Amino acid sequence: MKFNYYNPTRLVFGAGRIKETVDNIPKGVKKVLIHYGSERMRKDGTITTIQAEMKHKGIESILFGGVVANPRLSMVKQGMEIVKRENIDFILAVGGGSVIDSAKAISAGHAYDGEIWDMFIGKAEVPEKGLLPLGVVLSFPATGSEDSTGCVINNEITKEKRSIGSDYLRPVFSILDPNLTLSLPDRQTFAGIVDMFSHILERYMVNDDEYGLMDTMSEGLMRSIIKAAYILKDDSKNLWAREQVMISSTLAHNDILGLGRDEDWASHRIGHELSALYDAIHGETLAIIFPAWMEYVKDINPNRIIRFGKEVFRLGEDTTVEETIKAFREFLKDIGMPLYLKDLNIGETDIEEMAKKCTLYGDVGTFKKLNCTDVENIYRLAL
Amino acid sequence: MKFNYYNPTRLVFGAGRIKETVDNIPKGVKKVLIHYGSERMRKDGTITTIQAEMKHKGIESILFGGVVANPRLSMVKQGMEIVKRENIDFILAVGGGSVIDSAKAISAGHAYDGEIWDMFIGKAEVPEKGLLPLGVVLSFPATGSEDSTGCVINNEITKEKRSIGSDYLRPVFSILDPNLTLSLPDRQTFAGIVDMFSHILERYMVNDDEYGLMDTMSEGLMRSIIKAAYILKDDSKNLWAREQVMISSTLAHNDILGLGRDEDWASHRIGHELSALYDAIHGETLAIIFPAWMEYVKDINPNRIIRFGKEVFRLGEDTTVEETIKAFREFLKDIGMPLYLKDLNIGETDIEEMAKKCTLYGDVGTFKKLNCTDVENIYRLAL
Repeated sequence: MKFNYYNPTRLVFGAGRIKETVDNIPKGVKKVLIHYGSERMRKDGTITTIQAEMKHKGIESILFGGVVANPRLSMVKQGMEIVKRENIDFILAVGGGSVIDSAKAISAGHAYDGEIWDMFIGKAEVPEKGLLPLGVVLSFPATGSEDSTGCVINNEITKEKRSIGSDYLRPVFSILDPNLTLSLPDRQTFAGIVDMFSHILERYMVNDDEYGLMDTMSEGLMRSIIKAAYILKDDSKNLWAREQVMISSTLAHNDILGLGRDEDWASHRIGHELSALYDAIHGETLAIIFPAWMEYVKDINPNRIIRFGKEVFRLGEDTTVEETIKAFREFLKDIGMPLYLKDLNIGETDIEEMAKKCTLYGDVGTFKKLNCTDVENIYRLAL
Repeated sequence: MKFNYYNPTRLVFGAGRIKETVDNIPKGVKKVLIHYGSERMRKDGTITTIQAEMKHKGIESILFGGVVANPRLSMVKQGMEIVKRENIDFILAVGGGSVIDSAKAISAGHAYDGEIWDMFIGKAEVPEKGLLPLGVVLSFPATGSEDSTGCVINNEITKEKRSIGSDYLRPVFSILDPNLTLSLPDRQTFAGIVDMFSHILERYMVNDDEYGLMDTMSEGLMRSIIKAAYILKDDSKNLWAREQVMISSTLAHNDILGLGRDEDWASHRIGHELSALYDAIHGETLAIIFPAWMEYVKDINPNRIIRFGKEVFRLGEDTTVEETIKAFREFLKDIGMPLYLKDLNIGETDIEEMAKKCTLYGDVGTFKKLNCTDVENIYRLAL
């Protein structure tokens, strides 16, 4: 086993701590790009309060809102232009994973001289120097981008959804204030929960029969996410469960649970094509694809799937692969997720095209390396 | 719940990766103090190889060995003098927790103008600036100091063992090469395992009935440590188990499992007096004190102790506090730990004095706040 781990993001967690945002901006910063999504965040005072505090401390700021789910490359490019034109020296992302990823892409693009999309299709590395430093105020826990190396962007021209990853993309700080999540709509809450759950599962589904600390800690975290999800189903304002979900988002994807592992990530890649083509909600694509993927790859290592059932869903000693996948789908159904493509009104029309795109740069996954036909089969299993 | 988390230590993990040590020293460093314990590390070539590599890269170095278990304040002061006299700009600690802590104390002492012991008795804070940067090559996983904020030193004049903690004490990098641990003697291996297990338990034993992700992840990690311990009992050269133990040391004490918690630490404090007075091995003091502590405080929250039994030792649904403590002691016995003070030939002579010293600066613990009489009672329970 071998790994490097470097994560200098400062986490500032707790109800009400959004008021410490500006204190965390590094000394010397002169002009901040405040990047956000919905205008609600501006109208409800969240952003204007931060902006006023900046002004009070002599920091200039420029608002740049309008990021949408599955954040667009065109907007990233627009952001890069503003950064250049306005001599911005810090980005503050206020929002969920889409906003953070859009900000990360602006940060990386700022450091790269060539065409930014090159990095997303593996033609260029994320630079080590020259990135714009980035702070985060997290409003929607899901993607883990607030403490991760990753960044996912939609190229709306080529209809591709692709990611980059680098330690240099980790934010300088992330403000994790669970109060901001108390009024999230259910659909967003639970899609976010499926996303973080899947981040653990992508690391957990390795073809290894020796169960060690990465497994037991991951199982524990998945179990706790399920517990918090059921609490929020009945009581969406439960602060304890909101806190649990917010920390889970961060720990599920900051790679502490992936140390030394062959991670899989096929289900994410297969799901991304649904978002690229139909603008489907990321967590919902995972709810559909992950169980179908599990059905398709089960013979590679049935014991690991059974172990997932035993330890995460606490099924009995004699449980089976089928019972495990059933329990997984039952949990997803209980929290209102779509289980099949038909639940999103997606038919078989584009399956071949999506499978081709998904494997355009090579096979996907490690638990089982999936080629174009495999991916097509998984879409069909999910119909 | 509220917390800040900041951990910029770069972890470099894997068999054979000790050869990357010098590559990790920051650019610009001119003269390194190589701090170590046993001369074995020099004679077997570990240290001389690193020194030769430094020379090759134009970095001067000075050897400063001889750190013992329960590292001494006098040696720290000696180190501070060498650092000043020789214009040292980096410390490399090659060894286990004692060596790392001795190096951390030198680093903190270098930044503090007053009497260094002031920081250990709460009269002064660890400075935020001016600390000497520190790298680690870990030879003995136990204390977690390679990725922690903590540092524990013995004052041999006052016979006190005290700690300091600060984010600024985290190393710049830690080389975690499990090959270095393959030939550790059993007594050291298992005392180290008890130490890391206890680091989780000190954070786990909180007076809280709502079990969340900190609990489930901690339970998972404790279960995995037990598994690895039993493997090493039969096969001390098992690389998989050595890897597990090395990562566990780090994760048990880098505070990822203490986020937002009231941690306890009474058992550590009570055990420290045994090391201060009798130079007892730290892990062995914990094996004696932790179960006795658990017996003494059980009525505060029996459910949490029972949960520890159910989830960590996988006792049945109907298990009891007594069965849990018994299972804990059985595990400790299986790995060769002393269970009572008499096993270390310690009688009741110094109990009153130790209890007084332990509570000299106030009550200890949070699960139950323990005063001098409580601590005395725990020593007696451990006789």
